[in-house]
Amino acid sequence: MEMVLAAAANCTGALSSNHPKTFLKSRRSSLQMRACRSGPDAPLAVSSAAAPEEPRPVRLGIMGCGSIARKVARSMLLVPAADVAAVASRSEGKARLFAADNGLRSGTRIHGSYEALLDDPDVDAVYMPLPTSLHVKWATAAAERGKHLLLEKPTAPCAADLEPILAACEANGVQFMDSTMWMHHPRTAKMRQLVADQDTIGDVRFINTMVSFLANEDFLQNDIRVKPDLDGLGVLGDIGWYCIRGILWAVDYELPKNVVALHHPVKNQAGVLLACGASLYWADGKVATFHCSFLTNLTMDLTVVGTNGTIHVTDLVIPYEEKSAPFSVASKTNFAELSTGWDPHPSKHVVTTDLPQEGLMVQEFCRLVQGIRDAGVKPEGKWPGITRKTQIVVDAVKASIDNGFESVDVAS
Amino acid sequence: MEMVLAAAANCTGALSSNHPKTFLKSRRSSLQMRACRSGPDAPLAVSSAAAPEEPRPVRLGIMGCGSIARKVARSMLLVPAADVAAVASRSEGKARLFAADNGLRSGTRIHGSYEALLDDPDVDAVYMPLPTSLHVKWATAAAERGKHLLLEKPTAPCAADLEPILAACEANGVQFMDSTMWMHHPRTAKMRQLVADQDTIGDVRFINTMVSFLANEDFLQNDIRVKPDLDGLGVLGDIGWYCIRGILWAVDYELPKNVVALHHPVKNQAGVLLACGASLYWADGKVATFHCSFLTNLTMDLTVVGTNGTIHVTDLVIPYEEKSAPFSVASKTNFAELSTGWDPHPSKHVVTTDLPQEGLMVQEFCRLVQGIRDAGVKPEGKWPGITRKTQIVVDAVKASIDNGFESVDVAS
Repeated sequence: MEMVLAAAANCTGALSSNHPKTFLKSRRSSLQMRACRSGPDAPLAVSSAAAPEEPRPVRLGIMGCGSIARKVARSMLLVPAADVAAVASRSEGKARLFAADNGLRSGTRIHGSYEALLDDPDVDAVYMPLPTSLHVKWATAAAERGKHLLLEKPTAPCAADLEPILAACEANGVQFMDSTMWMHHPRTAKMRQLVADQDTIGDVRFINTMVSFLANEDFLQNDIRVKPDLDGLGVLGDIGWYCIRGILWAVDYELPKNVVALHHPVKNQAGVLLACGASLYWADGKVATFHCSFLTNLTMDLTVVGTNGTIHVTDLVIPYEEKSAPFSVASKTNFAELSTGWDPHPSKHVVTTDLPQEGLMVQEFCRLVQGIRDAGVKPEGKWPGITRKTQIVVDAVKASIDNGFESVDVAS
Repeated sequence: MEMVLAAAANCTGALSSNHPKTFLKSRRSSLQMRACRSGPDAPLAVSSAAAPEEPRPVRLGIMGCGSIARKVARSMLLVPAADVAAVASRSEGKARLFAADNGLRSGTRIHGSYEALLDDPDVDAVYMPLPTSLHVKWATAAAERGKHLLLEKPTAPCAADLEPILAACEANGVQFMDSTMWMHHPRTAKMRQLVADQDTIGDVRFINTMVSFLANEDFLQNDIRVKPDLDGLGVLGDIGWYCIRGILWAVDYELPKNVVALHHPVKNQAGVLLACGASLYWADGKVATFHCSFLTNLTMDLTVVGTNGTIHVTDLVIPYEEKSAPFSVASKTNFAELSTGWDPHPSKHVVTTDLPQEGLMVQEFCRLVQGIRDAGVKPEGKWPGITRKTQIVVDAVKASIDNGFESVDVAS
């Protein structure tokens, strides 16, 4: 329970003044943030001064040094429960450069192969931002060595390939979590409360998500997300993942009954998707649509329309600013007299957080790992369950695109 | 040209101080507004003091006294170029009550039948908010008597039925315009500039519209929009019309190549649509989706996503407030360093107007009628052209719903 309070306090700061221990964690977090700027080994010095009742930090290994790893590594340095113990790349030089560039502490172990990282006995958990085609091999291997797993999305090339990963995690009692960072933003929790509130939103009937960014020529030629042998799902696996997750989130993870892809998907010459979309249907009549693209301006919309209310968020995946995130709610909206306006107007909300959403994700992951490692708690089944459902819907959309936009039943 | 300036000034007030004539019009407009409150015959007194070079107001007949007629009648009283000369209902008592309830001047002629209104030689133009199933008969009859026609949407039960109406207007040299009021809001013009601006939005690639309101039990049982013999298109003809118009507007009225309805349309026991949607496809790869519903909270979204930018408006059809209307634009949006935010943030815009959008619609309609009546100008072909395209797409969506969500080619 204390951990939960502490987590909440790190998100919003609301509890700091009443909880001395929480304040200590927050203070330590901000010290670490400053330490990152002044020198790579400062965090260790702070760490040794931690309150004795704090659980030991989770010793994390970063396995792969892509650009997304930089952002997540930065957030790990902000989380007291996380210690970046090791980093691995296929070349030791690249791993060493990554450690130096990203302010990792001087004692961070540098591994020149993924195998070496997995053999490192002083690594509790692995963050794995490798290309998706490598996930089955390496994520399974990590779980089999007893490493807890924070896995970048898309988690596998298809749902069938995800199963051995999840099975290995379950068999080895390690925590699995995918790296969908916005799930951990306190805005998401706040919106969840409202979506679940019959009085505010009522029954959710329609959902729309649109996520895109304008990839430059270098991305479209060279990024792993346009390469069939690396991230073969292309835009569908990358930001389509967020669209589908957002939709599933809005319906509390009830799988749709069937899925129909939108026409006119855009593919590159290698057949990798650069833009696509779909409509999703539930047995009770709920409908959702989404569209994702590497070919249009940055857009990150989620709209949830219920019988009683509507929620709009336009920066779902990456908030406009790291420390505050807006959304708006229209509820029980009538027309003004003679339909000359709205009554009431939608209300605007802003949710603040001290830690960036990647930090909150790392914090939650570490909290679960600490429970398993130090207190014999079982792995949290919610996270692999949500990942599996997301991957199942990705599969269905891909199948509908491949079969000429016919309806595809979703296996549950 | 003066008319254009005056129209602009009435929208925004921006030109008032430099244009005495414009100021006079604005002043008269606000006098009329006050006159409505103090007594029904005040506007005539003001009218006799109008500057001599002003064209005579258009003598309007309101044909049908439904609830939407109240809103449009109110706006007519705010427009100097409009004079509500007559009102008709199937019963004289109902027409008389409407005139009294809505502050029409004491000299307004009351007709107990639609025929009588069309026979009234002192009526230049007719505003017709009759149930859609009556449009073919009465709109055609109006045009054949030389009455200019402001016709409520949906303009016909199907595109084929619209043709005799448009043909009659053309044959008789009268102006046709449908009553899609938000088309005339200065916000729409401002957004049009941006959508057309390659630098700001670039090529439009994806559009989404969602329009809904939660109809109450009385509406769902008794409103003409749920009756197969009155407005048989149901939600598709009512607010789906706005969705489709918004999409066509965003692509500068280029018809899509094909249309596929969303699954799970909701119908009442009589088979009238209460909720539905579709995806639309253009030959060049543009995609649009829409959803409309009588069964969810008030929602009025239009999102236009281009290569360079994205426009969001969330109160498209009826702005939150009558006198100001917001929208936001994200353009050339990059990620902040390490993808920790957006750079730049979307910009927010507010467009103000003195006249409500229905007033601007009436003003534009009257301007066109005055040109035809007083200066031999030809009817503006833009408006019937846009109406025809909207009705064609409505047809295609309806056909796709009826054929089990198969793709329907759009006849151009």
